[in-house]
Amino acid sequence: MLPPFSETQTDEPQMRRPASEHSNAVPADCFADLHSTLATVVARVETAMRTDLEHSLDQCDPLLIEVVHYSLFNGGKRIRPLLTVLCSRSCGRDDGDLYLLAGAFEYLHVATLIHDDIIDQAAQRRGKKTVVARYGKTAAILAGDWLHARSMHLVGKLAGPDSLEVFCRATQSMVNGEFEQLRHIGDISTSKEQYLKIIRQKTGNLIASTCVIGALYAGADRQQQHALRTYGSHIGEAFQIVDDLLDFQGNAAQTGKQIGNDFVEGKITLPLLYALAEASPADKEIMKELIEGDRTQPSSYEALVANIERYNGFNLAAGTARQLISTAIEILRTMPVHEDGGQATHLLQRLASYLLTRKR
Amino acid sequence: MLPPFSETQTDEPQMRRPASEHSNAVPADCFADLHSTLATVVARVETAMRTDLEHSLDQCDPLLIEVVHYSLFNGGKRIRPLLTVLCSRSCGRDDGDLYLLAGAFEYLHVATLIHDDIIDQAAQRRGKKTVVARYGKTAAILAGDWLHARSMHLVGKLAGPDSLEVFCRATQSMVNGEFEQLRHIGDISTSKEQYLKIIRQKTGNLIASTCVIGALYAGADRQQQHALRTYGSHIGEAFQIVDDLLDFQGNAAQTGKQIGNDFVEGKITLPLLYALAEASPADKEIMKELIEGDRTQPSSYEALVANIERYNGFNLAAGTARQLISTAIEILRTMPVHEDGGQATHLLQRLASYLLTRKR
Repeated sequence: MLPPFSETQTDEPQMRRPASEHSNAVPADCFADLHSTLATVVARVETAMRTDLEHSLDQCDPLLIEVVHYSLFNGGKRIRPLLTVLCSRSCGRDDGDLYLLAGAFEYLHVATLIHDDIIDQAAQRRGKKTVVARYGKTAAILAGDWLHARSMHLVGKLAGPDSLEVFCRATQSMVNGEFEQLRHIGDISTSKEQYLKIIRQKTGNLIASTCVIGALYAGADRQQQHALRTYGSHIGEAFQIVDDLLDFQGNAAQTGKQIGNDFVEGKITLPLLYALAEASPADKEIMKELIEGDRTQPSSYEALVANIERYNGFNLAAGTARQLISTAIEILRTMPVHEDGGQATHLLQRLASYLLTRKR
Repeated sequence: MLPPFSETQTDEPQMRRPASEHSNAVPADCFADLHSTLATVVARVETAMRTDLEHSLDQCDPLLIEVVHYSLFNGGKRIRPLLTVLCSRSCGRDDGDLYLLAGAFEYLHVATLIHDDIIDQAAQRRGKKTVVARYGKTAAILAGDWLHARSMHLVGKLAGPDSLEVFCRATQSMVNGEFEQLRHIGDISTSKEQYLKIIRQKTGNLIASTCVIGALYAGADRQQQHALRTYGSHIGEAFQIVDDLLDFQGNAAQTGKQIGNDFVEGKITLPLLYALAEASPADKEIMKELIEGDRTQPSSYEALVANIERYNGFNLAAGTARQLISTAIEILRTMPVHEDGGQATHLLQRLASYLLTRKR
């Protein structure tokens, strides 16, 4: 199920923006109706996934069945399937198979989460034990591989070879982004451009692929494909920046993840990069020592956060996310209005605004 | 490069068979010419893979490039690509893209080996460090995922949606086979039928898919598809049985793997199942204790091997592999003779016989 959308944002000053800016963005306090509309889509996607699994896991080992269900039905946000459905609808196609195609993106997403949690040795996700913590490494690697294969299978079958190509390229790019991120672990000389390239590869390209494949499924023309690809890559990057902000500022009870993970792992994210760029030489040296020192110390984490705040790193990073969302919303103005009266396009715009305000 | 084929089999009595049996199987001492013919195919496949990687890894992280090359070019037997090429040729098609399609099967195979080695915590493969031992778990999981995605991409693109479906189903089935194998770890009540079902899923279906997709690529008719699928699943199962025999009887210097791994891991394989079926109640009890005891003791392993030998387990398992190969060779008699004068089909038959004699 879709999570409850938070309806007020007053507790998050770094997300506040001047009234004159991004006039096409929907104010943060009117997502209540979005919730019920999107919940219907999510319910259809989940039904399609359950039906598909009943068939594709038929006669499979009970443990495989259990692990796949455990990993998939755990209160995920279902952002990717929502995007596929809304993008296809915004190009004029809405039918039963669309919801299964949309589910395929959740399969791939969950496969990558399962494998990421092995890599990060994460114990919790969305407030529950991760697959690796609950079922062990063997089951986690294998279940991820199963979901990976099933998702490619569905995309190739339902959306054709061009879509499969887009999807596989995005998956390959995601892996490359992870490798580039590893290369920059603990490296404070990482540039903002390198960070943005990494998140484009890690998150932007895959989210763009969910949008473009929705468009391809609907037989969209090149201009629509371009608009939805641009929309997807921008919201994908913004999504990752918000994720990186939540890693510092989130509430563990809401995100279901330990706060400060990125610092412990040595990931250099945008709030830190902004702060490093603005900091005095002395504070920059302090931050460098914190990052290169024992990152498991809570006092080190707190000192780093204080420095990021001092140099406005959180606000600046949130500003970059807002700018990306603004561009994403703007490009959708070029979309034609179909028989739904532009409702799907409008929902895509509002979903983009919501992503800025999410708490988990 | 293809490994040197062993030309004499006199040191392996369990592989010997009565002259009257399997008259269509090629005697073990005449694989010398097969080597040079297949080496040409392997060289073309490896060139196609290198060209593909140059393009698909362009501008990627240097470590990802290194890990992918390290894992792929390490003296693998290339059995799967050989099968794709020969099956397509046997149905009348041979062109440049065929060698890249064939390479895609090696990508998937290597992806599964990389992930298996993480699961098994294996230090060596083919006499070299495994990817996980050399580059760590993170790089190993991610490089496996990259190869997985690239292989699905190529199969979908070059061989079409029906082939992609066959390929993904086989991959899903392989994962399920691994789960079923886990379920039977250390379980001496495993039946021969359960063992055969596991190896069909783990190995047979994927090898069958390499053959059928070669046929589909060539536009083969249903009868040819059926013959090549049957051929593939039978040699795949035989291949796995030989693998399981080599785990007991191989030479670590040749296989590049530690002997007795399966016992240590608690895998119940065919030689053991045959011996258990034949053993006296007292010896069966001894074997049960060895399997349920401390399997890391070399003396336990030696005692188990002695029991398997006593009850003819190795010979009986080798006989099952021979029978499967014989059926595989037989079914190819139904294949039509194309412009190559049946050469590809003949090579498939000889390759099947060779698989029985392999030492690594």
